[in-house]
Amino acid sequence: QKNKKHINRLEKQMAFIIEIDKLKTIQRQSYIIDGSKKENDAEHSWHIAVMALILSEHKAFKKVDMLKVVKMLLIHDIVEIDAGDTYIYDEKGNADKREREEAAAKRLFGLLPKDQKKEYYNLWLEFEDQHSKEAKYANVLDRLQPILLNYEAGGQSWIEHGVSKDMIMNKNVATQEGSKKIWQHFETIINDAVKKGYVKE
Amino acid sequence: QKNKKHINRLEKQMAFIIEIDKLKTIQRQSYIIDGSKKENDAEHSWHIAVMALILSEHKAFKKVDMLKVVKMLLIHDIVEIDAGDTYIYDEKGNADKREREEAAAKRLFGLLPKDQKKEYYNLWLEFEDQHSKEAKYANVLDRLQPILLNYEAGGQSWIEHGVSKDMIMNKNVATQEGSKKIWQHFETIINDAVKKGYVKE
Ligand SMILES: [Ca+2]
Repeated sequence: QKNKKHINRLEKQMAFIIEIDKLKTIQRQSYIIDGSKKENDAEHSWHIAVMALILSEHKAFKKVDMLKVVKMLLIHDIVEIDAGDTYIYDEKGNADKREREEAAAKRLFGLLPKDQKKEYYNLWLEFEDQHSKEAKYANVLDRLQPILLNYEAGGQSWIEHGVSKDMIMNKNVATQEGSKKIWQHFETIINDAVKKGYVKE
Repeated sequence: QKNKKHINRLEKQMAFIIEIDKLKTIQRQSYIIDGSKKENDAEHSWHIAVMALILSEHKAFKKVDMLKVVKMLLIHDIVEIDAGDTYIYDEKGNADKREREEAAAKRLFGLLPKDQKKEYYNLWLEFEDQHSKEAKYANVLDRLQPILLNYEAGGQSWIEHGVSKDMIMNKNVATQEGSKKIWQHFETIINDAVKKGYVKE
């Protein structure tokens, strides 16, 4: 009986692992740096998790559970399998984003055994609500990585969408709560993007 | 002076973060599950890191540093930016794989500040040499994920390469050192792949 219960857990976990393979097909608005294609959510999640590790010395808080940060970053976009990627400057899409993503989180993490469903759903919620140090530091990477990609790729995505400096500043200035140092570096990038004509003044 | 040193570290870290974007273009031999494209190394690294987290209760060892496992899985394929993806059943490619990857690890992790170069180079080496519990558990996911993908995608990659059951067993049986439970599940998958004609008896 104990063994059967165990196998059952593994099967649920494998069903989740198979389902989330779809994240590799959810396209985002940023191009990868060589400009050859748009990034997908699996690639983005990998990149920001590595960034969180490499840049951890610059975070605003001393005691941060880095395993929790990395977990959050690896799983927070999984909801986009059902809800799609909502572009940060799409006001209409962002109006019902939370509702769509909550339903997605319930279905997708619901494939897991109950205890894990609860753990990962709450982890997703914690990130969305930005209520912990871990969520605030994780947010820095999630928000700023697309700016890095757009800048390094020559501004193509910003130009396509007619993005202005004000739009970028308004959406991202709060990331300094998670890391003032990293935000300051990105301010320099944004100002240079204006000079280069990638974003409107 | 202290501030300048600090900025210097951040610049080195950003150079590394920009360089590893290329991992999103390193194509592997497995198709993603919907069969629409071959997987790349960034997608693979994301998938196996999530798998390591979700399946951690099945690992062979009680005390495992999970942050170390996830770090390893997220960075171990970065060497393929220079060395390329070496197919597991390519005997010729595997003959000089270590040499090519060591040079790549030196160049790529060498972009980081010295202490981080050392940390990440050693983490890569630890995974390659399979000398720790963390490396052994990480290896389970890295080895078995392509089997899951090939099986769920209908065996296309195995058929293209004429892969046999013996070839799969020889290359992967050692993963049971990291998790007997997960290996047993994959034995079932491999046997079913034979029945379905995806791999040769
Ligand atoms: Ca998102």
